[in-house]
Amino acid sequence: MKNDPMKKIADALLGAESIDIVTHIMMDGDAIGSAVALCLALRKEGKTANVIIEDSIAEYLQFLEYGCVTDVAEAEGSGDICVALDCGTKSRFPKRSDILDSAKLRICVDHHQTTEPIADLNYIEPESAATGELVYALIKEMGTEIDKDIASCIFAAIATDTGNFMYSNTTKRSHEVVIDLYDTGFDAYSVSVQLYENEPYRKIALHGDVVSRAERLADGKIIMAKVSRELLESHGADFEDTEGIVSILRSISGVEAAALVKEKKKDEIKVSLRSKEYVDVAKVASGFEGGGHKRAAGCTIRKDLDSAYEEIKTALVKETCRG
Amino acid sequence: MKNDPMKKIADALLGAESIDIVTHIMMDGDAIGSAVALCLALRKEGKTANVIIEDSIAEYLQFLEYGCVTDVAEAEGSGDICVALDCGTKSRFPKRSDILDSAKLRICVDHHQTTEPIADLNYIEPESAATGELVYALIKEMGTEIDKDIASCIFAAIATDTGNFMYSNTTKRSHEVVIDLYDTGFDAYSVSVQLYENEPYRKIALHGDVVSRAERLADGKIIMAKVSRELLESHGADFEDTEGIVSILRSISGVEAAALVKEKKKDEIKVSLRSKEYVDVAKVASGFEGGGHKRAAGCTIRKDLDSAYEEIKTALVKETCRG
Repeated sequence: MKNDPMKKIADALLGAESIDIVTHIMMDGDAIGSAVALCLALRKEGKTANVIIEDSIAEYLQFLEYGCVTDVAEAEGSGDICVALDCGTKSRFPKRSDILDSAKLRICVDHHQTTEPIADLNYIEPESAATGELVYALIKEMGTEIDKDIASCIFAAIATDTGNFMYSNTTKRSHEVVIDLYDTGFDAYSVSVQLYENEPYRKIALHGDVVSRAERLADGKIIMAKVSRELLESHGADFEDTEGIVSILRSISGVEAAALVKEKKKDEIKVSLRSKEYVDVAKVASGFEGGGHKRAAGCTIRKDLDSAYEEIKTALVKETCRG
Repeated sequence: MKNDPMKKIADALLGAESIDIVTHIMMDGDAIGSAVALCLALRKEGKTANVIIEDSIAEYLQFLEYGCVTDVAEAEGSGDICVALDCGTKSRFPKRSDILDSAKLRICVDHHQTTEPIADLNYIEPESAATGELVYALIKEMGTEIDKDIASCIFAAIATDTGNFMYSNTTKRSHEVVIDLYDTGFDAYSVSVQLYENEPYRKIALHGDVVSRAERLADGKIIMAKVSRELLESHGADFEDTEGIVSILRSISGVEAAALVKEKKKDEIKVSLRSKEYVDVAKVASGFEGGGHKRAAGCTIRKDLDSAYEEIKTALVKETCRG
């Protein structure tokens, strides 16, 4: 698929009056950071712009809201343009796909590998570490001055998706964007503290508990753990508190692939998959109608927790131990 | 104190034949990264150069050795120049202070706040996030081409001391240095995996256990935990496996100051102190003849674990709750 020029997308946005922005459910730092950064930039250009969501913002990300986010139930959704950011399939924003479809012009800017074009103008770059990098390029193309708030959003987006410049998707460009953000005088440390140093004690205690119950397979190359509703309740923890556990599992010596199998509701099991060097976890996820990147992917399985766990185990062992 | 020009230090090194490099005991990524980077650069300039140590290299840092490190027992120690890196007090390299003193010329390059000049030529810059940034500047000043191995060492140094570009000491410059390193084609991800994704399972299990036993004080503004020899043994863990626990403690919501009190040997208690925004933990550490930075400091107390813990608690509560 050939990308439309970023200039064409910038010109379309500058020529519009009202723009709706959607991103995927269960927003992470890249989703909300990218969406709010673009929204703020469009408002600086005098546009009516809103980020429309259909679920809640995780507590640790609420500082990135900047007055931009509206719930789908209250949204007007009659924008000249709808921009889908960080999500290239409608299943990632099911209750808002109508907003995209009813817009006069549909735009998609994303960095996910498994993306198929869903818009009239598409800019899909899997080589980018974060959609935040692409939104940065788009705002520069629009000629909008990046202020501290926009910088905080873009920094949060890039820091999240690069695991603080540590994951294999990080490039020289990721650092270059950040250098430019520093010129706005934004407070990178404050963003980092809010993103990472703001963990409820229940979450940290849950993480320790889950990790200590993990199962190691294939000579330690695979590590897996499960989180039941019961376990969450015993810690007074929410489903969102499982965020980060899979990264801890992956960080263990000798581990190539890690899976965290989480019971969101009865028979609604969310699976997070990570790998270090060679296992393509996007491939494993796609076997369960999920998606993502080679080193970080996810899927949903509509079965009970133990069955889902066993199915993921079989698929992950097969992918890790083949060849 | 006025710094000597970096050019003067570079010229002195280029004019010498043999150089010994020392850094502090219990090396972290900045210590070994800075020392080996400079050693490799000096060898590229045809010098006899060695990094002399007096204790062991932690397992997760051994990939940065690059054939440069010699034990003090085997070292010749008759260099024209001795360079002390990342350590400005002789108590941080007690068995090697003779090597510094007997050198024809003594150089100190450091970024620690509490440093007093110990050398003939000194470059002390507390504003630098890592000694690795200063060694980068020194190597550039020497005109030595930075290759992949040197880049890996400098990246490890900066990534360690900035907490992956997250701590408040991180500056635009930290990212600028990294961008220049990327041009060598070095593999930042591989360095990150070795630094952070190489944790023995015993370490991760120990962390969960210690954190779940933590004590919260002053309405949650302070969090403290202790690690006895007995607890270490119950996990089959080493003293070095406590690395990182204090950062987990600090990351908890509402926490301003965190302390980890560790029994290294009977009556030799090591204390790690961290703060988020306003508590000066270097001041707390200095009350126990320790040192460090405002947000990260440490000290040694020669008492039993419980007494040391109570003394630190008193000092930390006083510093956190004053005013």
